[in-house]
Amino acid sequence: MTATPSPTDRRDRAVIIGAGLAGSLAAVYLARRGYRVDVYERRDDPRLAPAGTAGRSINLGLSARGMRALQEVGLLGDVLKRSVPMRGRVVHSPDGTVSFQPYGVHGHQILHSVLRDELIAVLVDAAEAQPGVRFHFGWRLHGLDRETPSVSVTQLADGVTDEVPADLIVGADGAFSSVRQQLQYGLRANHGQEFLDWGYKELTIPVDVDGRPRVRLEALHVWPGEHGLMVAHPNVDGSLTCTLFMPFEGPHSFATLNGPAAIRDFFRRNFPDAQELMPRLVEEIIEHPTGQMVTVRTSPWRYADRVVLIGDAAHAVYPFYGQGMNSSFEDCLVLDQCLERHRDRGDALAAYETARRPHTDVLADLSTRNFVELRDRVHRPAYALKAGADRLLSRLLPAHWTPLYTMVAHTTTPYAEALARSERQDRLLRAAATGGVLALGTALAYTITRAARATRRSGR
Amino acid sequence: MTATPSPTDRRDRAVIIGAGLAGSLAAVYLARRGYRVDVYERRDDPRLAPAGTAGRSINLGLSARGMRALQEVGLLGDVLKRSVPMRGRVVHSPDGTVSFQPYGVHGHQILHSVLRDELIAVLVDAAEAQPGVRFHFGWRLHGLDRETPSVSVTQLADGVTDEVPADLIVGADGAFSSVRQQLQYGLRANHGQEFLDWGYKELTIPVDVDGRPRVRLEALHVWPGEHGLMVAHPNVDGSLTCTLFMPFEGPHSFATLNGPAAIRDFFRRNFPDAQELMPRLVEEIIEHPTGQMVTVRTSPWRYADRVVLIGDAAHAVYPFYGQGMNSSFEDCLVLDQCLERHRDRGDALAAYETARRPHTDVLADLSTRNFVELRDRVHRPAYALKAGADRLLSRLLPAHWTPLYTMVAHTTTPYAEALARSERQDRLLRAAATGGVLALGTALAYTITRAARATRRSGR
Repeated sequence: MTATPSPTDRRDRAVIIGAGLAGSLAAVYLARRGYRVDVYERRDDPRLAPAGTAGRSINLGLSARGMRALQEVGLLGDVLKRSVPMRGRVVHSPDGTVSFQPYGVHGHQILHSVLRDELIAVLVDAAEAQPGVRFHFGWRLHGLDRETPSVSVTQLADGVTDEVPADLIVGADGAFSSVRQQLQYGLRANHGQEFLDWGYKELTIPVDVDGRPRVRLEALHVWPGEHGLMVAHPNVDGSLTCTLFMPFEGPHSFATLNGPAAIRDFFRRNFPDAQELMPRLVEEIIEHPTGQMVTVRTSPWRYADRVVLIGDAAHAVYPFYGQGMNSSFEDCLVLDQCLERHRDRGDALAAYETARRPHTDVLADLSTRNFVELRDRVHRPAYALKAGADRLLSRLLPAHWTPLYTMVAHTTTPYAEALARSERQDRLLRAAATGGVLALGTALAYTITRAARATRRSGR
Repeated sequence: MTATPSPTDRRDRAVIIGAGLAGSLAAVYLARRGYRVDVYERRDDPRLAPAGTAGRSINLGLSARGMRALQEVGLLGDVLKRSVPMRGRVVHSPDGTVSFQPYGVHGHQILHSVLRDELIAVLVDAAEAQPGVRFHFGWRLHGLDRETPSVSVTQLADGVTDEVPADLIVGADGAFSSVRQQLQYGLRANHGQEFLDWGYKELTIPVDVDGRPRVRLEALHVWPGEHGLMVAHPNVDGSLTCTLFMPFEGPHSFATLNGPAAIRDFFRRNFPDAQELMPRLVEEIIEHPTGQMVTVRTSPWRYADRVVLIGDAAHAVYPFYGQGMNSSFEDCLVLDQCLERHRDRGDALAAYETARRPHTDVLADLSTRNFVELRDRVHRPAYALKAGADRLLSRLLPAHWTPLYTMVAHTTTPYAEALARSERQDRLLRAAATGGVLALGTALAYTITRAARATRRSGR
């Protein structure tokens, strides 16, 4: 496989670094816009990998934004065929009770659980079906000249190196993006990265001996433990992939899950009903790697008319709002809209960053807040009260009241606008609550005054 | 010059990367603590450099924390001999008025202006006077093994490379520290860097034709312009070094100071009395580079018992609180205290980060706030009122009321404690103000009621 294009092809050439979710969908979008596209990816082709390569977060929840971006290029149907609808949350409490909460008040407010590699396979197939698109798996970026622009890439198997000229370089190479590093080198680049002191581990709930799901399949399962959090996404084959989140260090942490007795004891206390669903629990805890979670806020995302970042390279977020993939897909859509609107590509890339970054910065905040909320508040009565009021109000006033989660997951309202609207709603809710207390106080005062008067009268 | 130590010397060996302010003072402290010390610095020996190498921020204000750290190793006297006391601020308003504000209510609350390179020369001389301390100028770090630990360094002049084993490696290599990069590699390191969209340029107020200062020498001069800010520190020879701060881009920015007419016009509007003090103004604006300012918040600062960061490598701050050097010197003192208290060096380095980082994070906030305040608030009446109230209260209640600036510049109260105390004071001040309004309101209400009663009575 050579990386040199046909010299007769006069179309603009895009080089995408990274064939993950963002990079693969960007290939589809850019091809549709008339670019020749070469995608370089360090890992092997996921379509050739042995199934069930466990231990990485391979199961994701597709929601409205991601669906919208797939719909735009005609791929939503193909993806949904390979996914399991999740109609709500099944919450498994530490006391053993299990409850179902539908995602929204409307039937179409559902998420779709899909395997990461299957999704990428659909995207790569769709991109390769377009003329001039090629994927190069097993190649690593080792240099980028943002002025020319061009990249140097090395084939990992044999060390062969290639210099690839481009008109546009797209960095879709993840939270620790090398493209970003080269793009921002020597500029006044603002950059923040923040790791969570919690990690995660992938576990499996296989089908039962009869090949049937062990739990309700069409839902996201959540175990809000006292010292950890577990979620499970369903797979088409009836199994579920769990992700266990807990601190790396400390008295109740991955560090202390160091043997069968400790693991079983921890699960008995925190996730009592989960243990029997996971026959290989102990082995998986010991064998599977512990993943890290990082938030990245960075700028600039672009250099002149020739280098641009999408996905985690531009805005990595904690996974607790389920929006990592969805926001990456939305990047592709927004970038495409900007390329459509602006004749000059430099203007388009600038417009993309201006339009997009405020929203992904808000998503980073929301994802952090959601982690804190999931960790600390799920069991608190005030939270339940607020969540209940939210749900009630959205049923009564569907056009006027939409819970923040619903706006984030089930609409394409830009993140910052969703947050602003939610904050307005919260202020109203608080005012109403205060009003209620005041009304109660006034009523009490009136009653007491009447009683006092009555007493005075009777005392006369 | 070879980097290999005598094999008979059994003392622990420290390698310091960077012979700036933090690295040079750290050499003194570590030598006193019994370490053999090798310091590698990319630049040339400042003691050999031609005087007056203009265009970099070479003039700094030494305040209480820095003085305390120099005092501890007996170097304060030497440094003060080479400095000019600054007893307060001379504020040059755009309308041409000039006023003097003493720094504190007490005579000893003064700052000392000193040339960066002269200060470093004092520190290097003092360090080299101790046995086993060597400075290697013109060497660059190109590798660091945090496990061994060791560094590889290259002599810039001839490309000679040396591998230097160490017991302790100190990263004193500035805001874009390579030591930090190696220390944190692959760890869950939190890192934030933020550039200001303002830059700075060094300018000169030379002595007059008779060799005398053109302005009051023993003060920090401040020009709070509408579209920029200028400060000037005095030098021993009677000249002053100015720093002009303004936006990089925009209608009133370095980008628009692109010729003699634009420069003279800008100064006439913003710093009317400054132009005549700077005969080479136009040439200097055009010739001198524009510096950048960055805030760095990062962690961890240390790796096991063998690598540690100090100074800008650990916490770069904007220069608007005049605490960059002072906090770096304080790092050396705090690190030394931790090495004194903890037998185990790993414990000492951990204690150093725990003790120090919360305070330098607060300093980063304060330095940002002070920039915003200097930029936006200096001319607002409410600010003047608050500053006046602060000064009055500290005169009346010296033991109970200390302005934040005074605590930061003239005491060694840790930064976060200074901030907390200032916030308590501000709450009291606000409460007192509210109380005043309430008292006034009550008095008015009483008066009105009496008047109304009088009216009713007279109406009967």
